Amino acid sequence: MKGNIFVISGPSGVGKTTLVKKVKKVVPGLWISVSATTRPKRKGERHGIDYYFLSEEEFRKKIEEGYFLEYAKVFHWYYGTPKEPIYEQLEQGVDVILEIDVQGGEKLMEIFPHGVFIFILPPSWKALEERIKGRKTEGKEVIKMRLERAREELRYVERYTHVVVNNHLDTAIRDISYIIKADRLRKERMKETIRRLNVHTG
Amino acid sequence: MKGNIFVISGPSGVGKTTLVKKVKKVVPGLWISVSATTRPKRKGERHGIDYYFLSEEEFRKKIEEGYFLEYAKVFHWYYGTPKEPIYEQLEQGVDVILEIDVQGGEKLMEIFPHGVFIFILPPSWKALEERIKGRKTEGKEVIKMRLERAREELRYVERYTHVVVNNHLDTAIRDISYIIKADRLRKERMKETIRRLNVHTG
Repeated sequence: MKGNIFVISGPSGVGKTTLVKKVKKVVPGLWISVSATTRPKRKGERHGIDYYFLSEEEFRKKIEEGYFLEYAKVFHWYYGTPKEPIYEQLEQGVDVILEIDVQGGEKLMEIFPHGVFIFILPPSWKALEERIKGRKTEGKEVIKMRLERAREELRYVERYTHVVVNNHLDTAIRDISYIIKADRLRKERMKETIRRLNVHTG
Repeated sequence: MKGNIFVISGPSGVGKTTLVKKVKKVVPGLWISVSATTRPKRKGERHGIDYYFLSEEEFRKKIEEGYFLEYAKVFHWYYGTPKEPIYEQLEQGVDVILEIDVQGGEKLMEIFPHGVFIFILPPSWKALEERIKGRKTEGKEVIKMRLERAREELRYVERYTHVVVNNHLDTAIRDISYIIKADRLRKERMKETIRRLNVHTG
């Protein structure tokens, strides 16, 4: 595979979605993998851009068809990563970036052992708490669950390859872009360049 | 060790010395390890900045004293990497960058298995040939040896962790800085940040 996969995880409310969209704007040759979900669309979200919003029936059908690289149930909603489009991009040498929860991240670590797994940390627990509570689209019960889950999710940081603190958005975007650009300079990804030069010395 | 080591190798004439100096200017928290050598000082070189220029007697004495992390004889000159100052910087969390020939690079790979080993490639063999021939300070015999050696050296690229093409100086400087900055975001180097946050969630 010529491209590589960049997986963005981190606790609920840490700003993963914004980061992925902003990084895509500053790093050329990057493709965002859009997940499918059965959870209700939030205000401002668009089908095919933020998620593929599916009914539970549609989602289950796709599971049976082997459409997903991985899927999981979080709270009572399904989330899944479409398989085919990712492999198509990677084969073409395009890097794939995607946001996924820590359960999904672990599955992708098995599938892509050379993938880059970036865990986003909040600047502090307090800051994260405020962000989660400030999300006005959700009820109190959901917020409480999200806080508990965020605490759980933070424990997964140890399994990731890289850690970025989302204190200032611009710094976090820049940090993720460094990680992607440095990965492209790994010897394993420079084989074509090396080969081309060796022909000339031959 | 809190800092990491960034080793720059590549064929003679590829521009390693300039790159190391320029990268040091754009990346904060980086320290250049200056090597010792018995080869004659070239025009414009300064003791303690480009190299520590030692007599063969002085060099041999330092070998006996265990002063060098590694040393080698290239052509008929000795080159060595002082040990103590590197460990001092690493312990303080400062990243160390150094230029070394491929023999030395291999020794450092054993000593620093988590080090970052960057091989600098010329844009083409022809470009490298011109650079080596254009170095007016050296005689024809030396140039011929350098060309042969450059060909040999290029074979070592496979053992390095990263590859940077020195086509445009600014691009190569930027690429090396990405590699250093991305390394600082590896999970293993973010332990302090992770620990700090976990205290707050505790």
